[in-house]
Amino acid sequence: MRNKLLRVNMNSLTTKFEDLPKSLRNLGGRGLTSSIVKEEVPPTCHPLRSNNKLVFAPGMVTGTSAPSSGRLSVGGKSPLTGGIKESNVGTNFAQALARLGVKVIIVEGQFDDRYKLLQVDSEGVSFADATPWSDIGLYEAYEGLRQEFGDQVDICGTGIVGEMEAANSGIVFNDPEGLPSRYSGRGGLGAVMASRGLKFIVLDDEGAPGVDLADEEQFRKGTKKLTNALTEHDVTKPGGTLNSYGTDAMVDVINEAGALPQFNFSKGRDDRAAKVSGEAKAEEIKNREGTRPHACHDGCVIQCSEIWTKPGGEDPVGVLEYESVWSLGPNCGIYDLDTVGELNRACNDLGLDTIEAGATIAVAMEGGLLDFGDGTGALELMDEIREGTSKGRILANGAEFAGQALGVTRVPAVKGQAMPAYDPRAIKGMGVTYATTPMGADHTAGYTVSPEILSVGGEEDPLSSEGKSTLSREIQYATAFIDSTGYCLFTTFATADIPKGEEGLIESVNGVLGTDYTADDILEIGKKIIEKERQFNKEAGFTKEDDRLPEFMVEEELPPHDESFDVSVEQLDEVFET
Amino acid sequence: MRNKLLRVNMNSLTTKFEDLPKSLRNLGGRGLTSSIVKEEVPPTCHPLRSNNKLVFAPGMVTGTSAPSSGRLSVGGKSPLTGGIKESNVGTNFAQALARLGVKVIIVEGQFDDRYKLLQVDSEGVSFADATPWSDIGLYEAYEGLRQEFGDQVDICGTGIVGEMEAANSGIVFNDPEGLPSRYSGRGGLGAVMASRGLKFIVLDDEGAPGVDLADEEQFRKGTKKLTNALTEHDVTKPGGTLNSYGTDAMVDVINEAGALPQFNFSKGRDDRAAKVSGEAKAEEIKNREGTRPHACHDGCVIQCSEIWTKPGGEDPVGVLEYESVWSLGPNCGIYDLDTVGELNRACNDLGLDTIEAGATIAVAMEGGLLDFGDGTGALELMDEIREGTSKGRILANGAEFAGQALGVTRVPAVKGQAMPAYDPRAIKGMGVTYATTPMGADHTAGYTVSPEILSVGGEEDPLSSEGKSTLSREIQYATAFIDSTGYCLFTTFATADIPKGEEGLIESVNGVLGTDYTADDILEIGKKIIEKERQFNKEAGFTKEDDRLPEFMVEEELPPHDESFDVSVEQLDEVFET
Repeated sequence: MRNKLLRVNMNSLTTKFEDLPKSLRNLGGRGLTSSIVKEEVPPTCHPLRSNNKLVFAPGMVTGTSAPSSGRLSVGGKSPLTGGIKESNVGTNFAQALARLGVKVIIVEGQFDDRYKLLQVDSEGVSFADATPWSDIGLYEAYEGLRQEFGDQVDICGTGIVGEMEAANSGIVFNDPEGLPSRYSGRGGLGAVMASRGLKFIVLDDEGAPGVDLADEEQFRKGTKKLTNALTEHDVTKPGGTLNSYGTDAMVDVINEAGALPQFNFSKGRDDRAAKVSGEAKAEEIKNREGTRPHACHDGCVIQCSEIWTKPGGEDPVGVLEYESVWSLGPNCGIYDLDTVGELNRACNDLGLDTIEAGATIAVAMEGGLLDFGDGTGALELMDEIREGTSKGRILANGAEFAGQALGVTRVPAVKGQAMPAYDPRAIKGMGVTYATTPMGADHTAGYTVSPEILSVGGEEDPLSSEGKSTLSREIQYATAFIDSTGYCLFTTFATADIPKGEEGLIESVNGVLGTDYTADDILEIGKKIIEKERQFNKEAGFTKEDDRLPEFMVEEELPPHDESFDVSVEQLDEVFET
Repeated sequence: MRNKLLRVNMNSLTTKFEDLPKSLRNLGGRGLTSSIVKEEVPPTCHPLRSNNKLVFAPGMVTGTSAPSSGRLSVGGKSPLTGGIKESNVGTNFAQALARLGVKVIIVEGQFDDRYKLLQVDSEGVSFADATPWSDIGLYEAYEGLRQEFGDQVDICGTGIVGEMEAANSGIVFNDPEGLPSRYSGRGGLGAVMASRGLKFIVLDDEGAPGVDLADEEQFRKGTKKLTNALTEHDVTKPGGTLNSYGTDAMVDVINEAGALPQFNFSKGRDDRAAKVSGEAKAEEIKNREGTRPHACHDGCVIQCSEIWTKPGGEDPVGVLEYESVWSLGPNCGIYDLDTVGELNRACNDLGLDTIEAGATIAVAMEGGLLDFGDGTGALELMDEIREGTSKGRILANGAEFAGQALGVTRVPAVKGQAMPAYDPRAIKGMGVTYATTPMGADHTAGYTVSPEILSVGGEEDPLSSEGKSTLSREIQYATAFIDSTGYCLFTTFATADIPKGEEGLIESVNGVLGTDYTADDILEIGKKIIEKERQFNKEAGFTKEDDRLPEFMVEEELPPHDESFDVSVEQLDEVFET
């Protein structure tokens, strides 16, 4: 069985393998999820009612031996933004699904008597009762599921906040050690999953057929070039920035740039940020016998991940990513890795997206629910969420929701989704991306930080608004393609600077699909994906007024650069109206 | 001083009388508030930040001796809908403001050190400290204000929920007895007021110049014809329906029609509804020495109001309107007037719109926070709001907000505003009005119930979708005119059936303004107002997708007629795209 679409009907608890329509056959990841959501989900439907669907798709090359290619896209209509959502994750689950010959899973309808679990292996598909692993934390649930189904399985699920059908509920995957620490976190797709009546998907790829290669020679040649580039570039190579310090290496860099949002986006630089830097964390992981570096999925050559633990290697959490450390740390005025680690553990356990969770706590701090810097108070809020109290439900619905509940008008969100760790007033290109991506504020949608701060793939002045429409657009198009390939976005640090690497990446895709894409096709493929996404949003009722940053960022200057967001609305509208 | 615009700057605590621009001079009420909001408020601004404004305008003939003409419009950008809002009220405050020569008050900017009180009298304008009457219930506050400023003053204010900047916060006016029971309830304008730093406006019209009449003869002739019509028509005459039973007379009528939403819009008819009917209530008011009939403002000939009390005439609440009785009663499965009365008292005291409050409690009941029919529990929820607990804040932000917090997808709201007491599946024209009015679900915006149920102004089948676009459009245009005149909407029961009455109404307007409007002009004037409102909403990011009823009403049939909302989206789009 190869290249199949698995349709899961939760109304009738039936499943069906279908041939992938020809129009979808050369797609993968985001290209596939966004095409299917656009095609099959009524844009105006309520995201938590029966007409929404949840779509899972590994990337084009996922499941092969291509380096750092274990990405999976999850798509649907977002309960957080009200628009189309693609949220992607690096996990062995992606590779297992691809090797099982499944290009895409579409979950539709609603099973009323909650909850079910879907098993997929090389023998077929079946449902099981998920209640034994429901209404408990995901660390316990994933351990229990592995006891039941075996250590070799890969698991996807949604947590207690998904069961609440709260808008900040991610879809959670295991890391190679089985910890629930890999996330399609953004946009509330966990609630979409839970509202289908589906709590977990358990994969076992033993005996799976694997992924067909249309042109093995081409594939080998390409992956070799790409691997070379990844192992050469300073950011991605073994012993390089990501490998040594993880994504959290960005704390010092962005703080230095005056763009690390702190105290709910009130200032961009604070000396205390060094306490939660990647360097400090790597040192501490060594001290406490955690694991670093670490691959989030098999076959990753970058290995930016890690396993954070309590002292002595106790109670492993999983990775503490830059965005998580920032949002649960400095953005809340918290500069303590132990507190951040425990907050991250709580997010993983509950099924919360860390970016949205930290942004929400910071808004709650501004709203007077607790003081900035109060880590104990922040952890208590996580207990409120776990217990499903009214306070917990306010917080589980994200930053904008909490802002309304608490009378806070400084809410750093676009299309209802909280901003990640780059203040758009100090890195203007990121503001353009946050505003215009169909996803809501999302750094991965068009990471202009590369040229604006890291001098990767060019060099741009972060404080200037000039040329940022074009910059964001081109990076967004390229990203939509990368999000479809199954390659980790971090491969682009290398491919942006090393032409052979980009060449290799494209060849590897051609090797799998039998296509003859060139570098010129990439932007075109990405463009088509984003056009579908924008069309969905338009039909859902979005307009250019949704492609804006919050008013306070236009009105209020951010220290230390004392810049407001001064990219004009005309420039924002130029991004996709050209 | 006549025909002045009073501009109140809360940043600098300064006030200024301006001449009304020529373009606004013949407007009043809604025509004036919507024109000014359209002109002066940036459509994309955050409703609770400094760029929003709050506009008060009595109607064209308000302050004169015209019958039943004490209406005031309040306008601004709504924190509940995100669109333009006009919410109007019948109150002596309207007449006092008009007699003081003030055609409109514009409150702009934000005073940070909360709260101020604005005094306007024939001597001028001044600010006072409002803190002694803040953070307390409005019954106590209004009594205190009358002790301070005299029994003769008229008061406008916002309550505890306004101070919370919650989206279900009305603007509250005193009735002739001084009770805080007259409401510009809808759309959260109380939060807009409080976020300006303004808590109360106190008017004293002693020595006021009164309203100029351009053509006294014409005015007298007109008001006489209108008064005759009002005193002849069965609905509006002394001893007629409204006078005898108040608006609550509709309970039996709409229940009989199978369109009285009960148990959160789950059924349209229930025998128990009779227990809270206008007839039952009038009888009970007599038993307990309340007041009925009663005028909500001086010079009303309809006198549909009342003063509900506890037994023995204790603890007067004010009027229990049909919409309030329904929302706090049958829609929550509560069929007990005493409970409804105490819930209404709590709404008045806190500054909550009763329609939104009842819809929110019903959603909370569906979400499992309490059982349907649990009046004691509902009253406890009001205490939660008063205390500003997290649960209270969820509820104070309205039905849609509570639905998201509690995972309820059956939320009867349009543009974020909860529906009033007519299920659109059983009165299709009301669904067209709810969907298409720029205001969010609002029965007063285009009351098709008149021809669909009451055989007033024609006769239409309520269950048929045919012709309802035209019907709703024409009534919406006519209503926008009436909302500008200062006449109570109930005058249209008489003018729709008695041509002389309509003639008189128009003559009275001409008598005040010196215009020569004819019946043909009315729809055109109303149309222009709605076009401005729609333009504001469009610039705020609204599209035709916002002109829709919630998905569940299209999918789910309402007993006893077992009808879903089957007016097509094309028909909805026809209303204003013709």
